Amino acid sequence: MSVYSEQLIIEVLDQLKFDGAGLIPAVVQQYDSGEVLMLAWMNREAVTTTLRSREVHFWSRSRQELWRKGESSGHTQRLVEFRFDCDQDAVLLLVEQNGPACHTLRPSCFYLAVSDDRIVTIAEPLPEA
Amino acid sequence: MSVYSEQLIIEVLDQLKFDGAGLIPAVVQQYDSGEVLMLAWMNREAVTTTLRSREVHFWSRSRQELWRKGESSGHTQRLVEFRFDCDQDAVLLLVEQNGPACHTLRPSCFYLAVSDDRIVTIAEPLPEA
Repeated sequence: MSVYSEQLIIEVLDQLKFDGAGLIPAVVQQYDSGEVLMLAWMNREAVTTTLRSREVHFWSRSRQELWRKGESSGHTQRLVEFRFDCDQDAVLLLVEQNGPACHTLRPSCFYLAVSDDRIVTIAEPLPEA
Repeated sequence: MSVYSEQLIIEVLDQLKFDGAGLIPAVVQQYDSGEVLMLAWMNREAVTTTLRSREVHFWSRSRQELWRKGESSGHTQRLVEFRFDCDQDAVLLLVEQNGPACHTLRPSCFYLAVSDDRIVTIAEPLPEA
């Protein structure tokens, strides 16, 4: 797997439309199973660092800082493919997730579902490695 | 498939965290293939109408109006399951997509991908039905 050129990274940044806060939403999907793992936000630095390192980085809106996914938990995401949409205002990251994606230790953050008559939890935390 | 009670719909609305503009991002995924089709935005009315009708509705930020997906194209989305994430600030809609999801007539809006040395188009428009 080759390194992305700086020229290509600039081209990607030029195509993406960041919002008024300089952010773009990123959907993260496990590359082989297709499971949607989480949604987080990227700024230009997060996109650049993700493409340079092939390790997924986001912008933490709560901490207002660049955040390498898994930097404290070890539950990193290796970038398999970087995609974006027709309006260039959303990103889809195909990743190889290491461990659970969610801070609750569930495989995906989307574990709450509306069933016929109530809100249910559809996944349990993975055992600690 | 039963109708969601108004009480359950209120409970969902109470749990979701809408942003300062009253919106929450919604990832749309084909329920059986796992393909991520698009990302759009919902307000309280879009969530309510989607759960009541099981037809996916969004809030159009450009037109500033409620938007039934496929209302002009016929490419509607039937709701199969409504999920949300650990932070309650993102929605995942599992749907049965009718026709292409994208206004370009591609199956998914996420058809632009960063290959090793350039940005490529990874899907072609479907033939008109």
